[in-house]
Amino acid sequence: MSRIDAIYPADRITLREVGLRDGLQIARSHPATEAKLNWLEREAAAGVRHFEIGSFLPAGRFPQFADVGAMIEGAERHDLHSAALTLNERGAEAAFATAIREMVCVVSATEEHSEANMRRSRGDAVDLVRQIAARRDAEAPGKIVNAGIAMAFGCSLAGDVAHDEVLRLADACLEAGADIVGLADTVGYAGPKAVGELCARMSGVCAGRPFIIHLHDTRGMGVANAAAALDNGARVIDASLGGLGGCPFAPGATGNVVFEDIVYLAETMGFATGIDLDTLKTARRIAEEAMPDDDFHGALHRAGPPQNARWRA
Amino acid sequence: MSRIDAIYPADRITLREVGLRDGLQIARSHPATEAKLNWLEREAAAGVRHFEIGSFLPAGRFPQFADVGAMIEGAERHDLHSAALTLNERGAEAAFATAIREMVCVVSATEEHSEANMRRSRGDAVDLVRQIAARRDAEAPGKIVNAGIAMAFGCSLAGDVAHDEVLRLADACLEAGADIVGLADTVGYAGPKAVGELCARMSGVCAGRPFIIHLHDTRGMGVANAAAALDNGARVIDASLGGLGGCPFAPGATGNVVFEDIVYLAETMGFATGIDLDTLKTARRIAEEAMPDDDFHGALHRAGPPQNARWRA
Repeated sequence: MSRIDAIYPADRITLREVGLRDGLQIARSHPATEAKLNWLEREAAAGVRHFEIGSFLPAGRFPQFADVGAMIEGAERHDLHSAALTLNERGAEAAFATAIREMVCVVSATEEHSEANMRRSRGDAVDLVRQIAARRDAEAPGKIVNAGIAMAFGCSLAGDVAHDEVLRLADACLEAGADIVGLADTVGYAGPKAVGELCARMSGVCAGRPFIIHLHDTRGMGVANAAAALDNGARVIDASLGGLGGCPFAPGATGNVVFEDIVYLAETMGFATGIDLDTLKTARRIAEEAMPDDDFHGALHRAGPPQNARWRA
Repeated sequence: MSRIDAIYPADRITLREVGLRDGLQIARSHPATEAKLNWLEREAAAGVRHFEIGSFLPAGRFPQFADVGAMIEGAERHDLHSAALTLNERGAEAAFATAIREMVCVVSATEEHSEANMRRSRGDAVDLVRQIAARRDAEAPGKIVNAGIAMAFGCSLAGDVAHDEVLRLADACLEAGADIVGLADTVGYAGPKAVGELCARMSGVCAGRPFIIHLHDTRGMGVANAAAALDNGARVIDASLGGLGGCPFAPGATGNVVFEDIVYLAETMGFATGIDLDTLKTARRIAEEAMPDDDFHGALHRAGPPQNARWRA
């Protein structure tokens, strides 16, 4: 079994909880490490196994991720799959010194966003994926290299993004040694038609290997987009507890697609998640208490699943 | 052209705004008639043409619908298509005395809900549709008779509901003289798989005639369910401004699927709505001011559609 099949099996779906990373990126509240560990452990008790738990970014500019080491240790204590954003050489250096199980690189779909966000060209971003994958092969063969294509459904700087261009970059990342590629609707431009079409073509590029869909609910399309992705071959979905995350380009906007609602969606579509919704609700309460200045979203947590009818397909 | 084709053309989609009816049914705030007329007029200015504007229910028990006559006159002044709930003989008597353009009858998918909600059997409910349609034929041939199948995707009293049973009732309503039938996910049990499957079969039963899908966002599936409905032949969608509506069986739950978000969804899927989202936002503000004690939902109104990219498919 290959490294990637052991972590993200192609024959079932995996939900990645990104609240502790993307959910904190532009958050107003910065929860204490202890609260974050409680949140992680509570979600683990609910059956969640895949977490983005932080970022290897400068602690000066991103103090909410200064405890990434403690978060990795917390994940290891419970044998959880931990992932962290690894955006540059310094971040990679830090990552290899830890037990982090997955390094998340980002390649922007547009040159404009790549330069503005990471001060490097898309070509250089793919080269960084190549360097990290090579070092991984040499030093830490168990670690996963994940390459996320940001702005894959439209860019707040460049506007329209052609599917061909996204698929070309996804292919380049795989060729550079990434184990898995993600398609990110970073600013929530997509509708289900675009998501379905790009995922169907992505299934071809990945040739049986899983790929990730990373959705933002900025315009309320998150769950519909996830359904379209599942209908068209996506088997790994990013979501955040309570839909934490916001959008840097739309103040007050809703954030990542809501984890709880995605669990319900997947189960109604016949994809078993192994996640218990009641326990997840208690994790949500921990996060809400730890982040009093941030908005939580979603609907499932209010009503709960139907009590008297079959809702798992 | 038949009566129904003139109102709900089969070759395009129609969004029905039900906020002034279903949105007020269990609302805490009861907006004044003037505010409701402003709301109606503002949405008309945005391009909305189809409204449920009230209910022919006893004003004693439902004071929020006591002004149904004034609402019908308001709709007529702007040549809008008005519909109102017509649940019994007394309601029908009242309806025929007005200029209401569409009478909305309800047939429950389950015997249990039919008896509990309307104190009559499903057979008697279909017979009421037949009586109303007959009187319409004789006295008011321009009026539309709409029969909504409540609890079509699961019932808070009876649990699971078989698709076969829903289709049998839909067929019975059409045979009884209804011009159009609706499938209502009254308590928000459905996911997109169930909605897609039932809508695909419903397209067969309706044989080219349009049918309505009425969705509640109780568990966050509303937009995904609307996408599945559109993908499987539904061409008329109910939604309420700001997702007003709640759920009588889940206090605090989200309500009808959000009108603004459905406009965005439809446009991204290539279905032109003719509705202007900026103007709709001003209508939402009128409703929010008139209903200070109720929760408004949705995401599109926060971020607005993308400014620099094509979002209409």
